[in-house]
Amino acid sequence: MLLKSMSEKPFLSAFKGAAPASPPWWLMRQAGRYLPEYRALRKSVPGFLDLCFTPELAAEVTLQPVRRFGMDAAILFSDILVVPHALGQEVRFLEGEGPKLTPIEPRDLQPAGAADRLSPVYETVKRVRAALPAETALIGFAGAPWTVATYMVEGGSSRDFAKIKQLAVADPDRFAQIVEAVVLATIDYLDRQVQAGADALQIFETWSGVLSEPQFEKWVIAPTRRIVAAVRARHPAIPIIGFPKGAGALLPRYAQATGVDGLGLDTSMPLAWARAATGSTLLQGNLDPVVLLAGGRILDDEIDRICDAMAGHPFVFNLGHGVIKETPPEHVARVGEKLRARK
Amino acid sequence: MLLKSMSEKPFLSAFKGAAPASPPWWLMRQAGRYLPEYRALRKSVPGFLDLCFTPELAAEVTLQPVRRFGMDAAILFSDILVVPHALGQEVRFLEGEGPKLTPIEPRDLQPAGAADRLSPVYETVKRVRAALPAETALIGFAGAPWTVATYMVEGGSSRDFAKIKQLAVADPDRFAQIVEAVVLATIDYLDRQVQAGADALQIFETWSGVLSEPQFEKWVIAPTRRIVAAVRARHPAIPIIGFPKGAGALLPRYAQATGVDGLGLDTSMPLAWARAATGSTLLQGNLDPVVLLAGGRILDDEIDRICDAMAGHPFVFNLGHGVIKETPPEHVARVGEKLRARK
Repeated sequence: MLLKSMSEKPFLSAFKGAAPASPPWWLMRQAGRYLPEYRALRKSVPGFLDLCFTPELAAEVTLQPVRRFGMDAAILFSDILVVPHALGQEVRFLEGEGPKLTPIEPRDLQPAGAADRLSPVYETVKRVRAALPAETALIGFAGAPWTVATYMVEGGSSRDFAKIKQLAVADPDRFAQIVEAVVLATIDYLDRQVQAGADALQIFETWSGVLSEPQFEKWVIAPTRRIVAAVRARHPAIPIIGFPKGAGALLPRYAQATGVDGLGLDTSMPLAWARAATGSTLLQGNLDPVVLLAGGRILDDEIDRICDAMAGHPFVFNLGHGVIKETPPEHVARVGEKLRARK
Repeated sequence: MLLKSMSEKPFLSAFKGAAPASPPWWLMRQAGRYLPEYRALRKSVPGFLDLCFTPELAAEVTLQPVRRFGMDAAILFSDILVVPHALGQEVRFLEGEGPKLTPIEPRDLQPAGAADRLSPVYETVKRVRAALPAETALIGFAGAPWTVATYMVEGGSSRDFAKIKQLAVADPDRFAQIVEAVVLATIDYLDRQVQAGADALQIFETWSGVLSEPQFEKWVIAPTRRIVAAVRARHPAIPIIGFPKGAGALLPRYAQATGVDGLGLDTSMPLAWARAATGSTLLQGNLDPVVLLAGGRILDDEIDRICDAMAGHPFVFNLGHGVIKETPPEHVARVGEKLRARK
């Protein structure tokens, strides 16, 4: 059933049903602060967004981990908050404090033209695609509307999501304006990334775990389904991975209702259950970033445990969340060695 | 099959299989800052722990919401961090900053006698039991060892749990010493609460959602099972509720392996799935505290949705997390009215 070719990218083959003993891999936040070459380059620009919007530098940062470790996929170096920035909201990244967003009225958001304002990102995608080895896939990405909206409404990171949930519960029409703007901008933004050369897309839903089931339907599933449908209409062959972190028992519903081609699993997700509950959908995950940080025997054992649980199923090895900045680069190298040694 | 008596407490009847159209209810953090009478009383003591350890005042605070709203259960006013305090770790509650715990060596923890050092709590339980109406149950509680240990190791609240997970992953024997001390102290602490008059117990596992499946087995399930077995051996008839917040798809495993009599469901838990996946176990939950804060039509609708999903099943109405301090007390009153009006 499976068409194989020597030039096929292992990452993309997995979406066609391939399930080799040695699975393809990449790591969320594989480009970034744990790499000395990243830290050196980061010093050359004043702000984090300057780095995201300077194609030469963003492309270099995207390529750094692939060059060192030979992952099967690169992921565009950018941030989910470039979308609110493009919608006209002021976004600042303060050292050690996380992102700060200036409050904005929903009616002042500008979805028309937002994707155009992100053109440096597409230039980055082009450069990366041109520089990557043929066997390496390039993943474009965006935040899912609920998650992006949490930052837009809370003004940054949040512990309890009280502001956004109050808005979503008590004034759903007003909140829907924000989500609508993000949906429209995100569709065009992902479309343009594919046009520029992205081989696959990932939609990050970092905060799906704070919603009740009806809210999850309304604010996670419905907007994600619209984005998936619209991008797929324009690019039928491009695999789309959804990563609903914290979705828990709602993962099967997310898989079935959004129409994504692959599911990112967070660290808490039990693997046998996820595999049984989501049919033939490709799964990706879910090593604890703290285990990667720790390294040693426990790292080897966890890689084996995860790969064993996914044996025979279309699978991409990854973390359950991003690389922690204190992670020794040699632990990342070990992941590649260990995976390649699996037969 | 069901023995009924006029004097039976509705909260306790639910554990014997009763499933009335109008379910019993209480709310996590029902005593506290959203009540003006609490805020007035709070001013009379210098520190939060002084309030917890002054039986006259702690009993009064426990009774305040029951007096106002007629919940079917009172929950002892205390904090899960009285256990590390009793183990010899310095615990401070700073206004607006959350708890701060001074680092301590595992070998310096003192489980022997820890429960004795919490004797003011048992005096509170006695006073509350004596003052409560006969139809109102009194719930004692403790934090689960993993959750209590997160505060002990992180020194307070945490966003990423990097310290405790590094310790648990890289030095599991050292971490096990902390968990062992908490398990031993918690068994005696819960035992003494029951001896003093608690009708039921709840074990709060606030941070179960950050662990991988094997870690969840080791640090959530195993210690909880030990506590449940030891308390049950001493008090076979006392119902024990486990509240593994964020357990997601691991809820059925938690239910089956810990042996709890009831399961607290967080707001994200899909109700039909939880009901189908956990057999005849009593369920409790899971209104979004933000919906309670918002009030109005959405509050009424959500109460109906949750009760409808649980119709015919042993069920206690509650929140999915604690009352938010800005919640208008009349919204809590509305929960009681609405539940009593269900036929």
